[in-house]
Amino acid sequence: MAGAIQELSDLLARLPGVGKRTATRLAFHLLKARPDYAAALGQGISTLHERVRRCSICANISDTDPCDICEDSARDRTIVCVVESVPDLWAIESAGTYRGSFHVLHGLLKPLDGIGPDDLNLDLLRERVDGDGVREVILATHPSVEGEATALLIRQVLDGAGVTVSRIASGIPHGSELEYTDSRTLERALTDRREMK
Amino acid sequence: MAGAIQELSDLLARLPGVGKRTATRLAFHLLKARPDYAAALGQGISTLHERVRRCSICANISDTDPCDICEDSARDRTIVCVVESVPDLWAIESAGTYRGSFHVLHGLLKPLDGIGPDDLNLDLLRERVDGDGVREVILATHPSVEGEATALLIRQVLDGAGVTVSRIASGIPHGSELEYTDSRTLERALTDRREMK
Repeated sequence: MAGAIQELSDLLARLPGVGKRTATRLAFHLLKARPDYAAALGQGISTLHERVRRCSICANISDTDPCDICEDSARDRTIVCVVESVPDLWAIESAGTYRGSFHVLHGLLKPLDGIGPDDLNLDLLRERVDGDGVREVILATHPSVEGEATALLIRQVLDGAGVTVSRIASGIPHGSELEYTDSRTLERALTDRREMK
Repeated sequence: MAGAIQELSDLLARLPGVGKRTATRLAFHLLKARPDYAAALGQGISTLHERVRRCSICANISDTDPCDICEDSARDRTIVCVVESVPDLWAIESAGTYRGSFHVLHGLLKPLDGIGPDDLNLDLLRERVDGDGVREVILATHPSVEGEATALLIRQVLDGAGVTVSRIASGIPHGSELEYTDSRTLERALTDRREMK
């Protein structure tokens, strides 16, 4: 059963979370869909690598270099929020309250997977902190073993740079019930408690 | 957060079963994947409509017309198995025992969705039965209200054509337990019981 549909199914089946059956279903869906939609999607996928680049200031993924956040003169460049990935950056952007700049690590320290300190763009961050009037670096890696290890590493890398290094708060999420919160989070929420004034 | 990644996410999110988060995840996966994989996938999607055609004999989807099944001289053209869709045809092909030819309806009778007798390629089937030495038509639409209605309709369309019209067996699937079989299937299995000789 060779041919275009089968070839496309095989390619689709290599996507994460897409099994053989789903791949076939998607291929037939694309065949039934409007040809201009299939053309746009195909084009979007083929040209992705050409169109997209890393920002030379913050390593964000963007069509332009510098990226639109680094280019935006309304953003506060004296604050740098360090995130693991571009989706994390997007999540913070969607929240809509942060007006500083970013630094994207494109990974977390995972010695067992061979991801060491040299793989996290830390030279770029240190250069920027040394040269660019940065006064605070917020470490926004997520609260997990790797996220904490990476935050500690960056804390060391920035030692002596004369900037405030802060860590995002970890605790019970907004709207959650204590009853259903895991014990690590509860422990953290208690340890990091703040005085009410 | 415009740009190539966002545009691609929006397009991916229009696929069935792909939500906004999955679409973003897939877009970043494609960005991290090897560029030649993304290029092949994009190409496969863009060129699908051009490459694929309907077989003028059986309405199967194929890169060639006639399709490879209709072209295969080892197949028995006197038997035609009528299926709802190309995935159904593939399922029968994967089972590996059927050596006849096919007719693909590309749908089932669904008056409420506006799919009537004229939308099911039945003229093509009737012409073939009248002209091409067909001796048996097997109706392999699935056992559901629409599948049965479509089978009955085709039975009528082939009236007087001088061919045997048969219906695939419906009953308890291989390896299933009676205890967990739905009552409609059990009823069917009892009604369609066969004498053991």
